[in-house]
Amino acid sequence: MSKPYKGFRPDWQETRAPEGSYRSILKWGDPDAFKVPKESLYKMMKEFFGMTDDDFKTPREMGYEPVEFDAPIQLTDADLQAFAAIVGGDNVKTDCYSRLSVAYGKTMYDLLRLRKHIVENVPDAVLYPSDAVEIEQIVAYCDAHKIPVYVYGGGSSVTRGVECMKGGISLDMRKNFNKVIRFNEINQTITVQAGMSGPDLEKTLNNAPELFGASRRYTCGHFPQSFEYSSVGGWTVTRGAGQNSTYYGKIEHIVLGQEYVTPRGKIVTDDYAAKATGPDVNQIMMGSEGAYGILTHVTLKVFRYMPENHFKFSYMFHTWEDAQAAAREIMQAEIGYPSVFRLSDPEETDIMMRLYGIDDIPLAGNLLKLKGFEPMKRCLFLGFTDGERAFCRNIKRKVAAICRKYKAMYLTGIPVSAWEKGRFTDPYLRDSMQDFGIMTDTLECTVNWDNMAKVHETVRAYCKSRPQTICMTHMSHAYPQGANLYFIFIAKMTELDDFISYHRGILDHIQKSGAAISHHHGIGKMFAPWLEGFIGSNQLEIFKVLKQHFDPNNIMNPGGTIAVDLPEEEKRFIRPKW
Amino acid sequence: MSKPYKGFRPDWQETRAPEGSYRSILKWGDPDAFKVPKESLYKMMKEFFGMTDDDFKTPREMGYEPVEFDAPIQLTDADLQAFAAIVGGDNVKTDCYSRLSVAYGKTMYDLLRLRKHIVENVPDAVLYPSDAVEIEQIVAYCDAHKIPVYVYGGGSSVTRGVECMKGGISLDMRKNFNKVIRFNEINQTITVQAGMSGPDLEKTLNNAPELFGASRRYTCGHFPQSFEYSSVGGWTVTRGAGQNSTYYGKIEHIVLGQEYVTPRGKIVTDDYAAKATGPDVNQIMMGSEGAYGILTHVTLKVFRYMPENHFKFSYMFHTWEDAQAAAREIMQAEIGYPSVFRLSDPEETDIMMRLYGIDDIPLAGNLLKLKGFEPMKRCLFLGFTDGERAFCRNIKRKVAAICRKYKAMYLTGIPVSAWEKGRFTDPYLRDSMQDFGIMTDTLECTVNWDNMAKVHETVRAYCKSRPQTICMTHMSHAYPQGANLYFIFIAKMTELDDFISYHRGILDHIQKSGAAISHHHGIGKMFAPWLEGFIGSNQLEIFKVLKQHFDPNNIMNPGGTIAVDLPEEEKRFIRPKW
Repeated sequence: MSKPYKGFRPDWQETRAPEGSYRSILKWGDPDAFKVPKESLYKMMKEFFGMTDDDFKTPREMGYEPVEFDAPIQLTDADLQAFAAIVGGDNVKTDCYSRLSVAYGKTMYDLLRLRKHIVENVPDAVLYPSDAVEIEQIVAYCDAHKIPVYVYGGGSSVTRGVECMKGGISLDMRKNFNKVIRFNEINQTITVQAGMSGPDLEKTLNNAPELFGASRRYTCGHFPQSFEYSSVGGWTVTRGAGQNSTYYGKIEHIVLGQEYVTPRGKIVTDDYAAKATGPDVNQIMMGSEGAYGILTHVTLKVFRYMPENHFKFSYMFHTWEDAQAAAREIMQAEIGYPSVFRLSDPEETDIMMRLYGIDDIPLAGNLLKLKGFEPMKRCLFLGFTDGERAFCRNIKRKVAAICRKYKAMYLTGIPVSAWEKGRFTDPYLRDSMQDFGIMTDTLECTVNWDNMAKVHETVRAYCKSRPQTICMTHMSHAYPQGANLYFIFIAKMTELDDFISYHRGILDHIQKSGAAISHHHGIGKMFAPWLEGFIGSNQLEIFKVLKQHFDPNNIMNPGGTIAVDLPEEEKRFIRPKW
Repeated sequence: MSKPYKGFRPDWQETRAPEGSYRSILKWGDPDAFKVPKESLYKMMKEFFGMTDDDFKTPREMGYEPVEFDAPIQLTDADLQAFAAIVGGDNVKTDCYSRLSVAYGKTMYDLLRLRKHIVENVPDAVLYPSDAVEIEQIVAYCDAHKIPVYVYGGGSSVTRGVECMKGGISLDMRKNFNKVIRFNEINQTITVQAGMSGPDLEKTLNNAPELFGASRRYTCGHFPQSFEYSSVGGWTVTRGAGQNSTYYGKIEHIVLGQEYVTPRGKIVTDDYAAKATGPDVNQIMMGSEGAYGILTHVTLKVFRYMPENHFKFSYMFHTWEDAQAAAREIMQAEIGYPSVFRLSDPEETDIMMRLYGIDDIPLAGNLLKLKGFEPMKRCLFLGFTDGERAFCRNIKRKVAAICRKYKAMYLTGIPVSAWEKGRFTDPYLRDSMQDFGIMTDTLECTVNWDNMAKVHETVRAYCKSRPQTICMTHMSHAYPQGANLYFIFIAKMTELDDFISYHRGILDHIQKSGAAISHHHGIGKMFAPWLEGFIGSNQLEIFKVLKQHFDPNNIMNPGGTIAVDLPEEEKRFIRPKW
């Protein structure tokens, strides 16, 4: 529960959405969990957007209405009976609610459509498979009958990755396809079905002694912001990253083995740490986002669970330039890597300082002023370590030395704890704010160090060219050669066209400035128009050749996924790179 | 120079091989460098192989004769003129010596053939291109005229990777295609032409301040045993590993970007540290070993050059079981990784102890005996660190703690220094010993920890089933999930059939025991028969589809490379894994 407001408090929605309502689909996460703005954030929003309490009196487009639509089912009764024979009658659903509930992900485009009752691209039926054999039978049937097959994991896609552009069926993996196949403590690996959720995996590993008689507790090391509502399969096929990726690596560094069902048969990779046996099949399948086949099993590295070695740190830099230079030096110092590594630009810093109340701590606020850390110039850097204790302690020390060299001020671990509190729950805020017409969304990219300033400036300039728009930027996944840049934009925006045009403009500017168009969100169907401009035509041709091989009838996630079947007119060649 | 012998000293060859001779091709490395067995090794060989000084009186099959053979050139004059127009007349050679000098690599199969004057699979012409445009023109011409194209880098392939099974041309990259394209200190990367040699790259990086005005010295971090006679391109296309890979990673972890010329056009990858933009094109091209196209440019990560942080360590374990358990614990401890990480099995340990003279150091030898470290049971573990100083110091300390836990005895850094002395020069010994009919070769594989004992036992049992055969085994590249096993076999063996049958038998047993058939030597043409059994038919089909796409006329390294055009009858399905 948040602290009571001193002044007017909007009617933030904090009751469970009605069963069967649009809101129950669009709402983030746990149906019974809510996060509403603290009074300081509410005040900041009013101020920034020039709004008054009056603007917060009537929430709009809440989606409380029951899901109802008329989208005829294209499947025949024979199809449905065939599916029922494979997965059991209870595991085939054709009601409107089930169909819409797996049609969209969590980009603002999806949420706006749900709030406006815009129903498009729903599957004809939803299936809930429980093992890989069922999936093989489903794919074989669909290939023979040219029925499109989509997959729904945790549902947190922000790229229209799960959307059923051509109807057909969607396999909802959450319900039945979420079991541990094997845990191997000697190799430090676990093999799970693709529908396993992040929290289930982590709980399993944390409880390895009780569950498997293991000698110690383990962690998966992969904690995206969407952790609680994401799945192992989704992480893998989109090449996701967790917030601790600077230490643990992105999912492609954690996954050792995969099994896919494709129309051309099963693809089963090996699970050796390294080898020299031709092209890497794991890296061919990862990132295919369902366009080549359905990921069924994943073998992941696991790591020792040692939260006692989370040494927290936070620093304030005078300028974005100093902060970037220090970040680069930390990543190139060969001291090992911090686990959480998060550097905010000036606009994000100021907002975080207010949200975390750091400026209000008398000593901290005054000291920062006294030492010349100016609003809209200063940059907040925070993080913590993972690994063995002395390894972690050394990283914390060396980070301190580098930060001191750039005249940064140490701010203790308090801002880290504040960040940790919200790290998985901030998406709940989106729903509360959107009830009053304020939308929040994000885009992100990978940048090499030598291009960091330009990408930040170019993309930010575009974001801020829209009046009254907040643009918070940070790096949250760092490497010796570069880092991601993550843009959070917050604006008064309620119309689809407005969103689409702004979203496209940002992607255009990410591409134009020379960044990789996705560091960890994937491509899906929404980013596909920029893919050829980024990787180049000869390289995209490789994806298409593989698509043609695995899925000659184009039944696997068709409709633009990773641009393998994207119509020419949808391509956006902003900056043909080659 | 080695120490003088006290007894009979064989007539070890220590003079430069005549220009134009077979020996000048088969000899390892620098024409003026030699390495002959120390007397202790000579004694050991006599003893082990039941030989006497008499057996070392007449060297055999020395290859001092001039290269001469009759293998008609299949190219037309028009072809040769076309090549001369592209690379210049001086850079096209059709003489016998030039042709044979790029035909073979350095497996014992190659050396035996050279010693016996068996000339097969030579190219019709050798070209020396100097830039990527020339390579594009060569490939276009060859594709139009269906002329096979092979590439020769450092020439240290042990998989028949460079052999011109179908004649055609070979591009020798060493001479002209070896320049730095750009050095980027901000991103810590260097881009070079594929023919650059290991030492040239390392020297360039060590001298970055003088050459590029860099702020510090750098290292490439990649030092295979063949370092001095290997090329960046060869490392990359075969997925090689350096002896420091436990810290720096295999080449696929070091390479950030690549450019290839294929018959279908250029493939240019990006060079971002990470991204989520579909399948990884870098990992599709790496490992293609010339079967998809010719690697022209490589962008590599570079690392700080800090040899002062090489903290050396060596330990003796009582048993192979203890040593393996400790190795695994070190790699799973999350302390960072040592750089050189080398654990010898009992047979290798005993030989190293004699070669390094450790047993002869009064205190060490006696203490080892006293503490119950028994010959043919004890295992030597050695290594050193790389990275920032305190990071390195912590690794050395934690390694010590883990070794102590398994009752290992510390042996100081002396054995490491002894190993370092020979790390790049040991291959020279092969030539000396082979002059008297003793051949040395190696095979290696990747093993997961839970299968380490079985692979070691199975492969070793086969190796030792041949009478009077030395089989030294070690792990030299370690991971949290497993390590490689590297088998060195030494035997009295002078006949090709004998070698081939033994070599095949070892690969059969590597595969049967469940290891990956290559950790870093690649596949080439020699290991191709085992590839389908290892990766599975559906997975090999992917390689073939890509081959068909890039090279529809099969002109790129044809004749079995990575099994994409391997005749059915050559396949060896020892243990179909899937």
